[in-house]
Amino acid sequence: MSGPSPIAFYFDFISPYAFLGWVAVDAIATRHRRAVEPVPVLFAGLLDAHGHKGPAEIPAKRRYLFKDIARKAHRLGLPTVTPPPAHPFNPLLALRVASLPNSPELQKQIIDALYFAVWTKGRAIDTRENVTAILAEAGLDGHGLVASAETPGAKARLRTATDAAIARGIFGVPTLVVDDELFWGTDSLADLELLLEGKLPAFSDEDWNRLPAAAVRKGGL
Amino acid sequence: MSGPSPIAFYFDFISPYAFLGWVAVDAIATRHRRAVEPVPVLFAGLLDAHGHKGPAEIPAKRRYLFKDIARKAHRLGLPTVTPPPAHPFNPLLALRVASLPNSPELQKQIIDALYFAVWTKGRAIDTRENVTAILAEAGLDGHGLVASAETPGAKARLRTATDAAIARGIFGVPTLVVDDELFWGTDSLADLELLLEGKLPAFSDEDWNRLPAAAVRKGGL
Repeated sequence: MSGPSPIAFYFDFISPYAFLGWVAVDAIATRHRRAVEPVPVLFAGLLDAHGHKGPAEIPAKRRYLFKDIARKAHRLGLPTVTPPPAHPFNPLLALRVASLPNSPELQKQIIDALYFAVWTKGRAIDTRENVTAILAEAGLDGHGLVASAETPGAKARLRTATDAAIARGIFGVPTLVVDDELFWGTDSLADLELLLEGKLPAFSDEDWNRLPAAAVRKGGL
Repeated sequence: MSGPSPIAFYFDFISPYAFLGWVAVDAIATRHRRAVEPVPVLFAGLLDAHGHKGPAEIPAKRRYLFKDIARKAHRLGLPTVTPPPAHPFNPLLALRVASLPNSPELQKQIIDALYFAVWTKGRAIDTRENVTAILAEAGLDGHGLVASAETPGAKARLRTATDAAIARGIFGVPTLVVDDELFWGTDSLADLELLLEGKLPAFSDEDWNRLPAAAVRKGGL
C-alpha cells in the first residue's frame, strides 16, 4: 500500500522565491507527514515556452522583487536572503547536479548545499569550480557529481523534466503539486496547507476558462 | 496639521486580484485609521510600458489564476468571486468614471458599485449602457457620470495617473503605496500591515539593484 502522495516541488536555483519555498515546504511536509519530491526545472525554459518574462527581466519588477524577497523572508520567519554576486545567472550545471538520480537523502543534501550557498551565503553557483567546491564543503563528492551532471543523460534528464512541467501547465517557480493541484508561488503555500488539512474547497476553473476575451491588447498576445 | 498619510491604492477593474485588494484594504485602513486614496490606472498601459504580459495573456497562467482567485478569496474571507461574461474586457470607461474628481465618498460609491458588479455579480462593465445602469442601480447619476467620463479632461486624467504610476515604478495591480513604499499584490497586504504597525524593517534594495546580470535569456529582454 502506498502512503499519501508526495509534494512535488518544481524549482530553479535562479529564483529566490523558490528558495524561500524550498525552506518553507520542509516544515509543511513534516507537519503533514508527506514526502517532498524536488523537481529541478529550467525557469528560462518555462518562460520561453509560455512567451513571457521572468521578474528579473522587467526592470521595475526586479527593483521591487528584491525588497519583496526580504519582506517575505522576514514575515515567514525564513533565513535572511543574501544575493549571489550576479543575477540572473546560468543555473544549468547546478540544476543538472540536482537532477541526478541519487537517493532522496543525497538529492536533498545536494539541493540544500547549493540553495543555501547561493541565497544565504552570496556564493556564485554558475561555474564548475564553484559547484564542485560547494558540494565538497558539504561533505559530498563534488568532482564525481559534477562529472555525472555533465553527461548527455543528465542534460536530457533536466530537459525532460522541464518539458513535462510545461506540459503540466507549470509556468513559474516555485510550483508545488499535490494530487494534481498546482500551487504557484510562496503566497500559495497557505492554500496548499489548507488542501493538506482537507479544508480547501475543490474550486472548479471550468466556467472561468470558458470565458471569451472581449479585449485583446495590441501586441499583448 | 496633516494626519497619517493615506494608503494609495492603484487598481484596474480588469484585475480580480485588485478587486480582492480593494475589499481587503478597507479593513486594513480602518484598523490603522488611514484613508484610502484610490488611483485608477490602465493595467494594459503598465504592461505596455514595461513590455510584459498580464496573467490572462499567458494561457497556462490564466488557467491557474482563476482557481487561485477563488482560493485567495476563500482564505482571506473575502466575497466569492464570480467572473464577468468576458475577460479580459475593455475597462476604459469604468476607469474614467472612477477617476472623476468627485468627493472621496462619491468616488468610493462609484468604485464599489462597479467593482462588486463585475466581480461578484458577473456583470459586464465595458459598455456605456452597462456602466450607466450599474451606477443608477446604486442610486447614482449614471447618465451624468458617464457623460463626464467621456470628456477629453476625464480621458487625460486617467492617462496622467497611469503615466505617473509607471514613473513611480508601478508594474502591476493592485499596488498599494504608503510613505513611498510599494506593496504589489494581495500577498503583500500582510507586509503593508506590518509597516502600518511599525514592525516592517526598512529593507534596502540598493545592494541588490547593483547586481550585474550574468546570464541573459535569448530574446528574453
